[in-house]
Amino acid sequence: MNLDDKNGTTVQIRSADFKPRRNFTNWLIGKPLQTADAPHQTIGRAIGLAVFSSDALSSVAYGPQELMMMLAAAGMVSLQYSLPLVLCIVGLLAILTISYEQTIHAYPNGGGSYIVSRDNLGYLPASIAGAALLTDYILTVAVSISASVAQIASAFPGLLRWRVELAIVFIMLIMIINLRGVKESGVTFAIPTYFFIVMMYITIIVGLVRYFAGTLGIVANPPELTILAEPQALGLFLLLKAFASGTASVTGVEAISDGITAFREPRSKNAGATLILMALILGSMLIGVTFLAGQVSAIPSEHETLVSQISRTVFDGRGFLYLLTITGTTVILVMAANTAFADFPRLGAITAKDGFLPRQLTYRGSRLVYSRGIMALALLASLLIVLFRANVSGLIPLYAIGVFLSFTLSQSGMAHRWWKSGHLQPDQVKVEQGSEVRYEKNWVIKMFINGFGAVVTFFVTIIFAVTKFADGAWVVVILLPILVVIFFSIHRHYQNLAAHLTLEKYAGLHPLGRHRVIIPIASVHQGTLKALKYAESLSKDVTALHVSIDEDEAEKLKRKWETWGDGVRLVILESPYRLMIEPVIDYVAELSENRSENEMITIVIPQFIPRRFWTNALHMRTADTLRKVLMGQKDIIIVEVPYQVD
Amino acid sequence: MNLDDKNGTTVQIRSADFKPRRNFTNWLIGKPLQTADAPHQTIGRAIGLAVFSSDALSSVAYGPQELMMMLAAAGMVSLQYSLPLVLCIVGLLAILTISYEQTIHAYPNGGGSYIVSRDNLGYLPASIAGAALLTDYILTVAVSISASVAQIASAFPGLLRWRVELAIVFIMLIMIINLRGVKESGVTFAIPTYFFIVMMYITIIVGLVRYFAGTLGIVANPPELTILAEPQALGLFLLLKAFASGTASVTGVEAISDGITAFREPRSKNAGATLILMALILGSMLIGVTFLAGQVSAIPSEHETLVSQISRTVFDGRGFLYLLTITGTTVILVMAANTAFADFPRLGAITAKDGFLPRQLTYRGSRLVYSRGIMALALLASLLIVLFRANVSGLIPLYAIGVFLSFTLSQSGMAHRWWKSGHLQPDQVKVEQGSEVRYEKNWVIKMFINGFGAVVTFFVTIIFAVTKFADGAWVVVILLPILVVIFFSIHRHYQNLAAHLTLEKYAGLHPLGRHRVIIPIASVHQGTLKALKYAESLSKDVTALHVSIDEDEAEKLKRKWETWGDGVRLVILESPYRLMIEPVIDYVAELSENRSENEMITIVIPQFIPRRFWTNALHMRTADTLRKVLMGQKDIIIVEVPYQVD
Repeated sequence: MNLDDKNGTTVQIRSADFKPRRNFTNWLIGKPLQTADAPHQTIGRAIGLAVFSSDALSSVAYGPQELMMMLAAAGMVSLQYSLPLVLCIVGLLAILTISYEQTIHAYPNGGGSYIVSRDNLGYLPASIAGAALLTDYILTVAVSISASVAQIASAFPGLLRWRVELAIVFIMLIMIINLRGVKESGVTFAIPTYFFIVMMYITIIVGLVRYFAGTLGIVANPPELTILAEPQALGLFLLLKAFASGTASVTGVEAISDGITAFREPRSKNAGATLILMALILGSMLIGVTFLAGQVSAIPSEHETLVSQISRTVFDGRGFLYLLTITGTTVILVMAANTAFADFPRLGAITAKDGFLPRQLTYRGSRLVYSRGIMALALLASLLIVLFRANVSGLIPLYAIGVFLSFTLSQSGMAHRWWKSGHLQPDQVKVEQGSEVRYEKNWVIKMFINGFGAVVTFFVTIIFAVTKFADGAWVVVILLPILVVIFFSIHRHYQNLAAHLTLEKYAGLHPLGRHRVIIPIASVHQGTLKALKYAESLSKDVTALHVSIDEDEAEKLKRKWETWGDGVRLVILESPYRLMIEPVIDYVAELSENRSENEMITIVIPQFIPRRFWTNALHMRTADTLRKVLMGQKDIIIVEVPYQVD
Repeated sequence: MNLDDKNGTTVQIRSADFKPRRNFTNWLIGKPLQTADAPHQTIGRAIGLAVFSSDALSSVAYGPQELMMMLAAAGMVSLQYSLPLVLCIVGLLAILTISYEQTIHAYPNGGGSYIVSRDNLGYLPASIAGAALLTDYILTVAVSISASVAQIASAFPGLLRWRVELAIVFIMLIMIINLRGVKESGVTFAIPTYFFIVMMYITIIVGLVRYFAGTLGIVANPPELTILAEPQALGLFLLLKAFASGTASVTGVEAISDGITAFREPRSKNAGATLILMALILGSMLIGVTFLAGQVSAIPSEHETLVSQISRTVFDGRGFLYLLTITGTTVILVMAANTAFADFPRLGAITAKDGFLPRQLTYRGSRLVYSRGIMALALLASLLIVLFRANVSGLIPLYAIGVFLSFTLSQSGMAHRWWKSGHLQPDQVKVEQGSEVRYEKNWVIKMFINGFGAVVTFFVTIIFAVTKFADGAWVVVILLPILVVIFFSIHRHYQNLAAHLTLEKYAGLHPLGRHRVIIPIASVHQGTLKALKYAESLSKDVTALHVSIDEDEAEKLKRKWETWGDGVRLVILESPYRLMIEPVIDYVAELSENRSENEMITIVIPQFIPRRFWTNALHMRTADTLRKVLMGQKDIIIVEVPYQVD
């Protein structure tokens, strides 16, 4: 490096030296990556489907099952309503798909609910959407991992009692993989996703063939039924409640519109087509699984999943194909959790950049990922797993309400956007809150599509909140406003700070006035003299300060100071109550009150720095204590002059 | 205060302002006392006995009982050996009393084992004595409080299961009382001590009268026998072991020679007379209790104490006199623990002043007591209580070995002192290690008395260590050398430090060379500029340092610096791995390696100081991190320039 340029010049140093140290973390998550290493690869539809659909598709593994568990409260006969309810959910999926297809074209740079709400509705709705989504990403991890452990326990019932531990281990593994940085491309994603799709379709098709051939039996040794509600007659409330449970299946729809930038050009077109393909696969799977569940008389149960029951009936026992299906389902559920690990930190960073969360969330770690967000997610999801004993049915009532709330806000934002668009001249571009709005020909239709989506998802939100309130949705209903208040408190803090520190209309600082230097000394030795020398270099106006709790000691110190004190004024503060810190503080406070304009007070503290850790206990940390007390005061500066002994 | 005197003068300020703040602690332990408030009252023999004898006298409550529990291993018949063994212990008491009487006269300023060993044998024996005594003070508290709780539980068996909790509450109360500061004078001590003495004598005398009258019965409903050793035939080992258990009764003998200064003049004479009186009372009580225990066929038991059994037999049931006796015994045991609370912190302070323990132990708290030592003692004793479930018999094998070791060292020291004294000319005074030795006429006799004491206590130590080794004495045998090693490590640290910092043969510091000032900046705002202004006041040689992880941001900062940077040189460190701290450290390290002679580097860090606690989480604490890393380096000084926003 060139270290000695003249004043007034700017030097730019780029050195390979600024490399992180080798340590355990590097070993665990891989060697650091340069900012320039950030991947700019884009992906096509086939890989795109694999990358973004695991959350959505994996919900086949728990959505219909939760719906049936709820219905079972009205007796086994009521399970006949499963298929109609799932059809309603597939209808909802269709509405969402069409709505989001529009969003993808309007926001080619990525249009998650937070961004769409912020750009079109403002910061308050945006922060509601942000809070809802962040909460739901945590729940996605908890639900998906719990469901994947339930799959494993279906195949190996002996593992049932270890499900919490197993779930935590899964989360830790996913966390480490994500801290290493997952390239959102490549076969890593494609293989498990397509494997799951293939296995599910094989199960469904073989099942249907055997159904039509009349050779499909019913579940042998069915597990114990799990009923989630009090036994009751089938009524509208229970139907709505079962429907609400099932909506967990469509929560993954937003993923693609979040990640449009990852697609190859024309990216909006590719992303849109992928979304539609995903919806078709998801819809057909939901219908297939629910239909077969009815035909094989599968029992919704905590002890064995629906997928496991169907599969072992279709394939006649726990054979090779059965195990492949369970493996595929388990892996896709883990992948779904993995999606949240990509989305949560990214949304956290966007929100933090807007000043609603701590700025630290915008810094990328050594592997170019938002490490703090990843670790926060793992921690919070693990906490939920422990609290709910890795029980999917316990978590479901908290899940989905936030997703549907953010759907509603996002769709409302889009509808509002189309309305604005319609009121522009052709070729006119309006920039509002950083986003461009152009005139669109078919704005009325588009507005109605998104508006309809908003209304439907709003009703689903209300249904969910009402029917699941007592089961746990109340937690989210209380939590979201609290989160929004926290977001705005943080935002206000940053804004306030920026306003106070801005250089706009800033006249510049007054020149420094008198510079008073105080040096508290406990005794006179080489360390003290070094600090004294330094103090004298700062100002001609130095005062040494000794707090005396023993007259003889003070007298000795005074004599020593006459020899070594360099003529510097010594003030001895007698401390009748044997306090060491308080007299210094009082003295400084008095100086501070009586100071002249722009007078600066610097306190130079000689501080012994022990070489060994344990010797810390043998010394007073006067400098630390003084710093803590005086740090909050204006124009008082603490300088620690360390002395070391070898 | 007069704040503006000229340079080169010394000002002494004594201000009532340096008063501690009002807070919870003050409320709990009382308002602060000035150093000048230290009590200088002295006490006579009657009060002196009360103040210093509680430890010794209270051992009547557990000494004979532990001895009998041990004997009971060879059957109830072997309990007939209790009285002979107790007579041996009283003989030991006599030897100790005569020995210590000599010490009291030789050390009119207080002659505890640590001081006597230090002055006559050197630091190693002294530190062994110190370690042994400190350990035993902790055990005194644990044993006395456990025994006092056992007394209460004898009267109210329902409290037996709460004994650990009760013991901890007692310790906390004694701690608070001692933090308030106990005046070692006055009736506070006299009432309970004399009350106990009176009640014990009433019990013993009434018992003896009834014995001679032939109306003394035996214990009704005796408690379950507790045997501490495997059933075995009576042999020498068991007899010695029982004797060792009983020696717990003479551990309190040193108290008076520790506290001679508290006595009225002629203090040595008064203190010596008090010691002899105490020994007489203790000896007669031990004999009386053991004799009566045999006559009433008292059963040594964990569930009811010997004193309780004797008392309810002598007084025919749990009546008023019985309750008074139990109350007196409980209170004296608590007082005994209290004695340790006076001695432990004082010995800690003496040892710390010699540099064997952290210096902080020499500072007196707001109530003029060594608060740190008091709190340490309470903590350690509570720990023992919890570990041993407040069981006296479990603690006894750890107790007394340390006391007898320190007795041995102290007596050896005294013997050595007489020997030195005999080799002086009459009227010659020899000062060795701070203590004066004068010629004494009867030095040979005195030497033999102390020498005999040393030999006897040495054998008791060995008997104790051997017979109790497996029961727990091994803990102390291992602990003591470890403590001594720690003492000497601390001592070496302080000595090493003093040698390095001494101003003897010190030529003075070189004048400061170049003074380079580095100011790391993340962005340019009012806070940064304030720090810049300050940096410029320190030296003409200022460099601003920006770590860049984003090129655009760096470009913006560069332009801002051109306007606001006061012509100060700006170095931009590009950090390809997005590290913030490491590039600064590397840069400083390179500067540091290449610096000229006596060059000083000061790092001025603008640091935002949040007004509210929670906002801390919204900012990086760069200054703290840099300080931690750079503090250990020579001639690098960290200055934090705080900026606050209202």
